[in-house]
Parts: sequence; C-alpha cells; structure tokens
Amino acid sequence: MALRSLGPAPMVFPHPVFVIGTYGPDGTPNLATASWAGICCSRPPSVAVSFRAATLTHGNIARRRAFTVNIPGRPQVREADLCGILSGHAGDKPAAVGLATERAARVDAPLVPTFPVVLECRLSHTLELGLHTQYVGEIVDLLCAEEVLDEQGRPDILRVDPLIYASGNRAYYGVGARVTAAFAARAR
Amino acid sequence: MALRSLGPAPMVFPHPVFVIGTYGPDGTPNLATASWAGICCSRPPSVAVSFRAATLTHGNIARRRAFTVNIPGRPQVREADLCGILSGHAGDKPAAVGLATERAARVDAPLVPTFPVVLECRLSHTLELGLHTQYVGEIVDLLCAEEVLDEQGRPDILRVDPLIYASGNRAYYGVGARVTAAFAARAR
Repeated sequence: MALRSLGPAPMVFPHPVFVIGTYGPDGTPNLATASWAGICCSRPPSVAVSFRAATLTHGNIARRRAFTVNIPGRPQVREADLCGILSGHAGDKPAAVGLATERAARVDAPLVPTFPVVLECRLSHTLELGLHTQYVGEIVDLLCAEEVLDEQGRPDILRVDPLIYASGNRAYYGVGARVTAAFAARAR
Repeated sequence: MALRSLGPAPMVFPHPVFVIGTYGPDGTPNLATASWAGICCSRPPSVAVSFRAATLTHGNIARRRAFTVNIPGRPQVREADLCGILSGHAGDKPAAVGLATERAARVDAPLVPTFPVVLECRLSHTLELGLHTQYVGEIVDLLCAEEVLDEQGRPDILRVDPLIYASGNRAYYGVGARVTAAFAARAR
C-alpha cells in the first residue's frame, strides 16, 4: 500500500453534520449546517464550530454569544442539507426549510426540538483562523429525545442515526454496524 | 418526541477516531488516539486536535510544532484502540502497539504509512480551554492510499472505511450506506 500526496485539503473521515441555531439582531431564528466542527474539551465540556465571516451565523454568534448544535438523524437529511444551501441573509430560513424552532432554556439561541440530539452552548472563545472563524462553546446542556436513549439512559448512536458528511465526493452517509468496544484492546 | 436534559457533557455524533503522530524530545515516535478533533478552517486548510497536559503528545506538539493525523480503517481498530489506552510515557508506544512509523516528508513528525489517510500538519494556534489544550494544525499535505481513491482520484469514504467513536456507550462503529448527495436538496 503506497500513500499518494493529494496536496493540502481540509478533509478528514468522518465529518459530522451539525445544524447550528442562532438568533439574528431582530430575534429571527437562523439555522446553518456545519461540518467543520468537533468536541474540543472535556472540562468545561466544549464544542468548536467554524463559520465564514460572510455567513449570517458568524455575526449572530458574535453578538448573542450563544448557539445550539442540533444533530439531525437520517430522516432529517433533506432539512439538514437545505440549511447548508440556503442563506439566512435571504430571510427566515427555518420557515423556508420547514423546521420549527423554540427558544433554548439555558442560552440565547433557538433549538430544533424535532432533532434527536441538541447541545445548548455559551460562546467561550473566538479564534480567527483565516477564511473561517472558530467559535468554541461551553456545552451547558445536552438534550436527547427519549427514543434515542438506551436502557441505562445513555444516547445510543444507532438510535440517534446521525449523518456523516464525506467531503471527497460530497455526499451523506449513515452509521454502520458496531465494530468493537473501546478501551478494551490488550497489547500482545 | 420530547427532549430530555442530560446535563453538560462533551458528546456529539459522530466523534472521529484519529491517531496523532509526534516525536518526543529524543526523537522517539509517539502515537495517541484523539476523538476531540475536527476540521476548523478551509483556507488555510486546518484541523484541530485536543490533548490533556498530562499526555506525552501535549508536550511533543508544543516542542516540535508539528503532528500528523493518521486515520485508521476498520481493520486497524485494535491498533487505534491501543494507541488510546497505552501511555507514551511508558516507552516506545508504536513498537508496543505493533505499528511501524516513518518520518513525514513535510513536517517534523512521524506518520503511519499503513493507514489509509494521513494529514501532515504544522502547528498554527494553541488554545488553552481547561482540561484540554486545543492545537490547530495547518494541513500541509493530505496523503491517501491508492486503494481508497475513486475513479476521479478522490478519497472514497467506503474504501477508507474509517472508524466512528460513540462516547455514549464507548464503542467503535463503521460507516454505513450512502444516504444522498450533499448540496442537492431543493426548497419546496
């Protein structure tokens, strides 16, 4: 097996698919899809999401210092894709997409109550990286639909049924079968 | 469907599984598994990975200002899991795990030539977040095994066959079937 150089590219496997909820200056809710994102700290629990300055979400997070991370399941792929295509600058995107939102309980941002997993986040750090600004949010609450919890009350990834974005061929994938338990291998 | 509050937790779906390659002060290669990570900028292409100060990797990245992101496929799950269990402080972890490394061509870090995807990264930003330090690396090259490239020379996620980490039940999963093309939905 030989490795071939493809040159610099922002590509990993897997990319997540998150729909970020924010309020505009006049209180209009906005939803924008982000795959440049991931957990970045355990204590305080924190998640990073990156946006270009040209997006409505970029200014919304800076002003309100809050956002939600709404994680769609496979049945919501159309809505998630639309939230990445349409511009919030053009008007009320949640209405155009057909997603109802409601105010988060703990932060100044709207959430999507019909998605299986939602994180309420308070902006803690802003990092200018170039084309994208990275926003780090402290996760003040993790919300899950009852239906995705297992017998121990933990979210089960197969019930969440989240989307994966493949940037190589620009397509969405589902999660496959369980491979093995983590933190269980033994050195020979 | 009602959302239930689970309290603050560093959990999203999916988490990636990356094996981070670094050199120690004496040039010993180290490999450490990270799931608190993700792409954070398109230009310059950048990836963020987070480590606790207690880890060997934390000091290694700070000193050499370089790291590699090695993405294992499903056949490498045992090695990837071991790189997250064993401590680099205990000695030559790649040897203990059974993974050969070689020096990256463009950065001062070792890579795993038998993994399907490798990113060579130069440290660009360091952000202290709490328990974890977030390191942002500029991706100076993306390397892929010939076998994972499609007819257009793009990495195919089903051939990469990457791992997904589910922190809810601490297990690894594979990637499932293609759902649909991205950037293709139309508003009704």
